[in-house]
Amino acid sequence: MTTSAQVPAGTGPAAARLEEARRAYADLLGQGLSLDLTRGKPSARQLDLSADLLRLPGDRHTAADGTDCRNYGAPNGLPELREMFSGFLQVPVEQLIAVGNSSLELMHDCLVHALLGTVPGAPRRWADEDRVAFLCPVPGYDRHFSLCERFGIEMIPVPMTAEGPDMAEVTRLVAADPAIKGIWCVPKYSNPDGTTYSDAVVRALATMPTAAPDFRIFWDNAYAVHHLTDEETEVGDILGACTAAGHPDRAFVFGSTSKITFAGAGVAFFGSSPANVAWLRGHSAKRSIGPDKVNQLRHVLFLRDADGVRAHMRRHRALLRPKFDAVLRVLAEELGDTGLATWSTPKGGYFIVLNVPDGCAAEVVRRAGDAGIALTPAGATHPYGKDPRDSVIRVSPSYPDLAEVEQIVRGVATCVRLVGYEKQVAAEG
Amino acid sequence: MTTSAQVPAGTGPAAARLEEARRAYADLLGQGLSLDLTRGKPSARQLDLSADLLRLPGDRHTAADGTDCRNYGAPNGLPELREMFSGFLQVPVEQLIAVGNSSLELMHDCLVHALLGTVPGAPRRWADEDRVAFLCPVPGYDRHFSLCERFGIEMIPVPMTAEGPDMAEVTRLVAADPAIKGIWCVPKYSNPDGTTYSDAVVRALATMPTAAPDFRIFWDNAYAVHHLTDEETEVGDILGACTAAGHPDRAFVFGSTSKITFAGAGVAFFGSSPANVAWLRGHSAKRSIGPDKVNQLRHVLFLRDADGVRAHMRRHRALLRPKFDAVLRVLAEELGDTGLATWSTPKGGYFIVLNVPDGCAAEVVRRAGDAGIALTPAGATHPYGKDPRDSVIRVSPSYPDLAEVEQIVRGVATCVRLVGYEKQVAAEG
Repeated sequence: MTTSAQVPAGTGPAAARLEEARRAYADLLGQGLSLDLTRGKPSARQLDLSADLLRLPGDRHTAADGTDCRNYGAPNGLPELREMFSGFLQVPVEQLIAVGNSSLELMHDCLVHALLGTVPGAPRRWADEDRVAFLCPVPGYDRHFSLCERFGIEMIPVPMTAEGPDMAEVTRLVAADPAIKGIWCVPKYSNPDGTTYSDAVVRALATMPTAAPDFRIFWDNAYAVHHLTDEETEVGDILGACTAAGHPDRAFVFGSTSKITFAGAGVAFFGSSPANVAWLRGHSAKRSIGPDKVNQLRHVLFLRDADGVRAHMRRHRALLRPKFDAVLRVLAEELGDTGLATWSTPKGGYFIVLNVPDGCAAEVVRRAGDAGIALTPAGATHPYGKDPRDSVIRVSPSYPDLAEVEQIVRGVATCVRLVGYEKQVAAEG
Repeated sequence: MTTSAQVPAGTGPAAARLEEARRAYADLLGQGLSLDLTRGKPSARQLDLSADLLRLPGDRHTAADGTDCRNYGAPNGLPELREMFSGFLQVPVEQLIAVGNSSLELMHDCLVHALLGTVPGAPRRWADEDRVAFLCPVPGYDRHFSLCERFGIEMIPVPMTAEGPDMAEVTRLVAADPAIKGIWCVPKYSNPDGTTYSDAVVRALATMPTAAPDFRIFWDNAYAVHHLTDEETEVGDILGACTAAGHPDRAFVFGSTSKITFAGAGVAFFGSSPANVAWLRGHSAKRSIGPDKVNQLRHVLFLRDADGVRAHMRRHRALLRPKFDAVLRVLAEELGDTGLATWSTPKGGYFIVLNVPDGCAAEVVRRAGDAGIALTPAGATHPYGKDPRDSVIRVSPSYPDLAEVEQIVRGVATCVRLVGYEKQVAAEG
């Protein structure tokens, strides 16, 4: 890369840095890249880790209790698979159901059934409320926000802190406004900033008074076992905390194997209080004659038990960790002394957040796109796709190979310098 | 079985027949049966026909177009699988999507999206209508009716004829009432009476004026390839007929492989006009990051092509046909000369309808249950579970083995004689 030694004499410092960035960007354009960092997709090598699934269940077609997995029935999913994930998702096995291939679908369906049915404790269907709002910790997950937008659910952003959502703000809002029916949470290795909620935050979520009697925490524990370090962070048990606080029906817990085995061909989980599980099951029973139990059996035979899951996730980590390390190293090399950016250093999950100067994120993404580097649209981490400070960029290093990750992040850093220095020079001018 | 020769002398003919039926029923009770004829489930031997699926896709994980089936994406499903079913479902491949494991789920979701979204041509969301009603040809499929009941959609029964729904009644109703937004149809080998809609009925459904601009035909072609005879009945092309009639958005076509490969571990299909497909896809895209394409690839490799599907279905027929023949033979033997019952003789599908004297169906099901024979609840074939004549019993011979089918039907026939003659004697007394 061009270094500051090459800055031409006779220009001011900001202008000189901009000049360097322009040269680096021109060089980037010249490379004719076509790279994609938009989504948190597992790489082909990660998917190869589950290759045995492609031949399973083989000669077997019965579950431990004798259920023929090929036929209709068993609407709660296979007990042995629910047992395997019960500890990871912190839900008693009898309150955990395994169904479908996507936890996003289960979140969608919980919203649908709360809109068109009556969730336990609700005075009426949400469709019959004048107004329904959800708290959205930001930065957050765009697909959560899309669900709210699609159903006309108002989104109220609350800032994330190093411990999770700003609970002073959350408790103030939910105590005052009965239209606030829920909050989106990715409690461990949060999408996108990697934060794990502290025990104090979990406790506050469980105990806080809410004006809505039917308030729900949508606890999307998508990265429950997706560690990047030996620390293997734990998060507080939300379901237990809610029950202890006298709010047993407050939490909906979601999980899936999408980033454990095959993305889209895995198994999803829903866990909650007995009343909530009965409520969802009652509605789901109208929709379906049962989940794909053959795929559940396949997962049981492949992953075997909780230790099998842990061992499998260590193999993912061996592939993912070098990519995250590369992102952090390149960001430090390229932006470390510029004052233009900060970034997260996650201990798990799929993302790194890159914070650029206010008003620069969309322009960085645009410039990167012009250079053949597709990034998640700026603003995607905020409700309605609008980051009010226009400063958050989500980096998803899982899919490209290691060399590409380094190339992409170096290119993105070039765009950050270009846009950041342009802004500085404009401000100075 | 007890014969009329054993009727005691000195009683009237009805009383004598009742006496015989009581003895036969006492004998049935003494057998201590525990048999289940409630649902149209494939038998284990039928499921064994698809045993190769349990080892597939094996070494393959890419679709014909190079898509990695293990990862997210391809929301419309694999083109080669859609191609395979395009002809059977009479939907152009570009208007046919393959998603999920259950067509019932797709019907549910179409209702949800019509309630909470705005279906093409609709003046408003169905949730915002004062009243939404569906026509329900009876006898019909209980799970269709459960969906309506769950969403508060009023059900208006219309009688089935030998050609399909009574179109004089249907056209009169839909022309007059703008709240009638749809009709449930199982157009081929209808559940439960086995009827295939005539071309005239298909044409009338496509051309009839409807007061609702957003009227939809829910065309559940569940038994498209499920023949029981060499005739291999065809049904008219509803999508083509609707398009030709200037109502391109009128029909939603559903299908699945649930009774082709594995029930619950198969693939479901939705086909309609480009506008309707875009509408469903737009809503589904919020819910899911894509279907289980590995299972779709598994089906492609197993079934291979349309001829592969036909050959596979002939193997199902070889297992099913003897069971249907046994039902018809035993019904003829046991009830043929009683005047107490009539029954359907389907050329495909999964069911036989047994029509008993008015006011007797629930009592027959109850008496059969007391004797250890579980039947589909009487009334299940009608909206709200209420058969106004209480005369229709659905017989599902697929699941039990051949000997059991014969035993069950003989037992049911005994219950029909018992209840029928009880009623005659009561009427005479």
